[in-house]
Amino acid sequence: MRDTLAAPPARTQAPLHHLTEPQRLDRSLIEQLLQATSDFEQRAGQAQDRLQGRLLATLFYEPSTRTRFSFEAAMHRLGGQVLSAQNAGQATSALKGESLEDTIRVVGEYADAIVLRHPEIGAADRAAQVARISVINAGDGAGHHPTQALLDLYTIKKELGRLDHLRVALVGDLRHGRTVRSLALLLAKFPGNELVLVSPPGLRLGDDVRGAIGAASIHETDDLTGVVPRLDVLYQTRIQAERFASADEYGRYRGIYVVTPELMRRLSEHAILMHPLPRVGEIEPQVDADPRAAYFRQARNGLWVRMAVLDWAMTP
Amino acid sequence: MRDTLAAPPARTQAPLHHLTEPQRLDRSLIEQLLQATSDFEQRAGQAQDRLQGRLLATLFYEPSTRTRFSFEAAMHRLGGQVLSAQNAGQATSALKGESLEDTIRVVGEYADAIVLRHPEIGAADRAAQVARISVINAGDGAGHHPTQALLDLYTIKKELGRLDHLRVALVGDLRHGRTVRSLALLLAKFPGNELVLVSPPGLRLGDDVRGAIGAASIHETDDLTGVVPRLDVLYQTRIQAERFASADEYGRYRGIYVVTPELMRRLSEHAILMHPLPRVGEIEPQVDADPRAAYFRQARNGLWVRMAVLDWAMTP
Amino acid sequence: MRDTLAAPPARTQAPLHHLTEPQRLDRSLIEQLLQATSDFEQRAGQAQDRLQGRLLATLFYEPSTRTRFSFEAAMHRLGGQVLSAQNAGQATSALKGESLEDTIRVVGEYADAIVLRHPEIGAADRAAQVARISVINAGDGAGHHPTQALLDLYTIKKELGRLDHLRVALVGDLRHGRTVRSLALLLAKFPGNELVLVSPPGLRLGDDVRGAIGAASIHETDDLTGVVPRLDVLYQTRIQAERFASADEYGRYRGIYVVTPELMRRLSEHAILMHPLPRVGEIEPQVDADPRAAYFRQARNGLWVRMAVLDWAMTP
Repeated sequence: MRDTLAAPPARTQAPLHHLTEPQRLDRSLIEQLLQATSDFEQRAGQAQDRLQGRLLATLFYEPSTRTRFSFEAAMHRLGGQVLSAQNAGQATSALKGESLEDTIRVVGEYADAIVLRHPEIGAADRAAQVARISVINAGDGAGHHPTQALLDLYTIKKELGRLDHLRVALVGDLRHGRTVRSLALLLAKFPGNELVLVSPPGLRLGDDVRGAIGAASIHETDDLTGVVPRLDVLYQTRIQAERFASADEYGRYRGIYVVTPELMRRLSEHAILMHPLPRVGEIEPQVDADPRAAYFRQARNGLWVRMAVLDWAMTP
Repeated sequence: MRDTLAAPPARTQAPLHHLTEPQRLDRSLIEQLLQATSDFEQRAGQAQDRLQGRLLATLFYEPSTRTRFSFEAAMHRLGGQVLSAQNAGQATSALKGESLEDTIRVVGEYADAIVLRHPEIGAADRAAQVARISVINAGDGAGHHPTQALLDLYTIKKELGRLDHLRVALVGDLRHGRTVRSLALLLAKFPGNELVLVSPPGLRLGDDVRGAIGAASIHETDDLTGVVPRLDVLYQTRIQAERFASADEYGRYRGIYVVTPELMRRLSEHAILMHPLPRVGEIEPQVDADPRAAYFRQARNGLWVRMAVLDWAMTP
Repeated sequence: MRDTLAAPPARTQAPLHHLTEPQRLDRSLIEQLLQATSDFEQRAGQAQDRLQGRLLATLFYEPSTRTRFSFEAAMHRLGGQVLSAQNAGQATSALKGESLEDTIRVVGEYADAIVLRHPEIGAADRAAQVARISVINAGDGAGHHPTQALLDLYTIKKELGRLDHLRVALVGDLRHGRTVRSLALLLAKFPGNELVLVSPPGLRLGDDVRGAIGAASIHETDDLTGVVPRLDVLYQTRIQAERFASADEYGRYRGIYVVTPELMRRLSEHAILMHPLPRVGEIEPQVDADPRAAYFRQARNGLWVRMAVLDWAMTP
């Protein structure tokens, strides 16, 4: 009977493995997760049954087929099953006014781990405080997106061979972009990394992240073209239309930084271009064929990273 | 090849096991289902494969992540697989004007049982009349919610040791609240139970349920504080905002009965506080820590009850 | 470990098996798929594990519980697992402005095949051009719906014993009806078939399909009653409300052709009445009991056809 789901295990006393705020990941846990990621990638094509008999709940209060699919694919590739809420904000008790905490408590009675995407900063942390099962933050508003940051690290390591002494430009909407906020925190945990922040004045990286990183390793500019030549990683992001109060305000920023074939000519041969996707014009399609354009490889790495994170979260 | 789904079995001549109207459940079937529930709970942590090779369709025309997840978790915990429609009213042929009957006929060709939530009273019964597979009512408007009533019975039995000679207050919106409507019917099938109905005049329990129960065992009041001391079960419910014609009408009722720590002081030591959840303010969060607050344990029981119901519905 | 999903296999050099435009299906492939369909139907009730370890992504940008369920049921009946997007247009990066191509590229990193429903004509073909995995068209606007046409062929073969020298009336909205557009193309690949097109002047079959079929085998009329007696197949369709610019325009066509018991009296004993469903009044419910009413049997055939198509699409 190994091939079916067990009923939920007796409540364990072991501490839960939540993944909510990237700042709490220490370097040794990061390296452990990246090693597990690599192990899963090496075993691609081999059946895995490490999470057989386990049930993952994906609770998405904001739309994202991409991220949800990558977690659900990871769970299935590990032999587990999934409960899926694609639009939890409209298709749930949330509509009736239930608190996030109550929802988490109840879902915790049915599943073995929760992947949560929510529009409010700090939502995953609030969930983790009441949950009886592990909570994984798949994006909390303009807060953080730690599994994206882990897959970004994994991509950099795989493409460039190291995670330290790198010059990385983070470009675009650094105020609302949770992926770059999380990535900046994680890169700062490795020695010698320099972050070049490229954003218009209104979209600068928040003080919370700056404070955690320390000013010494940050350079700031709004001139993309000028900084490109000396980079190891050019990390482009989308202007987050959904975070602006008005279409006018969004319109002011949209299209200010676009990666073109011309810009790519200024980028070193050894460097890579990354993007968390989706993109809406900030990388021209002609760039896709450039071997330094790593964003689809990056997306693929999401599968292995999420296998590693789910395996860790559901193994006491 | 035991570990995969079989194609749908040949149509059997055995009668289908529908669960639509709680009134049709006789006491012996109720006790059989509660015993099966207990058996599944005892075996928590052991893999079950009783529904391996079977496919459940969850058709939700009204939003509910909670109830849908509990059925889908139950199906997975029994080794089965799920087809899931989270918002069938908007994401289905319903939008094109198809009758519920036609939808049920077609889904009946693909799955082995249907769990249906629908805004119209009687919808599950209509579905059962045309279905070639078992139909389970997961809520039909202001009609009934029989699996919730079963899990309520199971919770009472487990917490208090018996299902008869109890004094149970049903509190709140008894007109629209399908969970209390169904629970009242099931409690009346056991001897000596007294129902105390606590609701404002406009939200009284419907005559259909009263008629089935008989007036002898019903007491009615709008004074919650006065009835609390002598209760075995205080069953609080939500005012059903979505069933009122206007926000004004809802506003008139919202917040009239709230369970506070003060009220809990009047409740017997041996009694329990139940709620079908979600709640939106009618139980203060400080009450959660009270050991008599049974509502999260109640939610957990939903898993075992639904395992028992699905197993019964899909076993000829 | 046969009973769990393998990680995605190494990229194969074998050509992918896309199913996007019915015109590209040659007669030998059609016959191969219909034979596989028959084999799966014969083995109904036996567990299948041919797609064990494989993952199907269903991406529906237009609502359809029916078609999505039939693909997902087919995948589960073959032992596979599913990633499901019920409302991809609202719950995905599409909302953020991502191109269909980028979505397909990323989903192609997580799954082993994609079933796509999309409101734009040609969307499935565009998807297939960038996908690293097989793409199956489950409806592209007013374009095509090839798996529906295959199940229609399978139904005709099963009910009437042959696919050639048939007189088939296609009735209703032939301009927007992708199921009849695809069926017309496939029927024309078998010798001796005569198509009787019955539609009001504004809803005639498009020139693209006419051109591919050739005028010789087409008869056109707007008089349904007159053509019924000599038919082998009466294929009724729904007027596609969602494709009209205004409710007024839709109202002009709605209800012009209705199959009644009276009309059925004019139909030959050996003939059948088909409909792709959903229906909204164009077949009266009293007709359902007529043994020549084949539409629910037709829906059931959808399961076996989709098993055959998925098996073909995921087997190099």
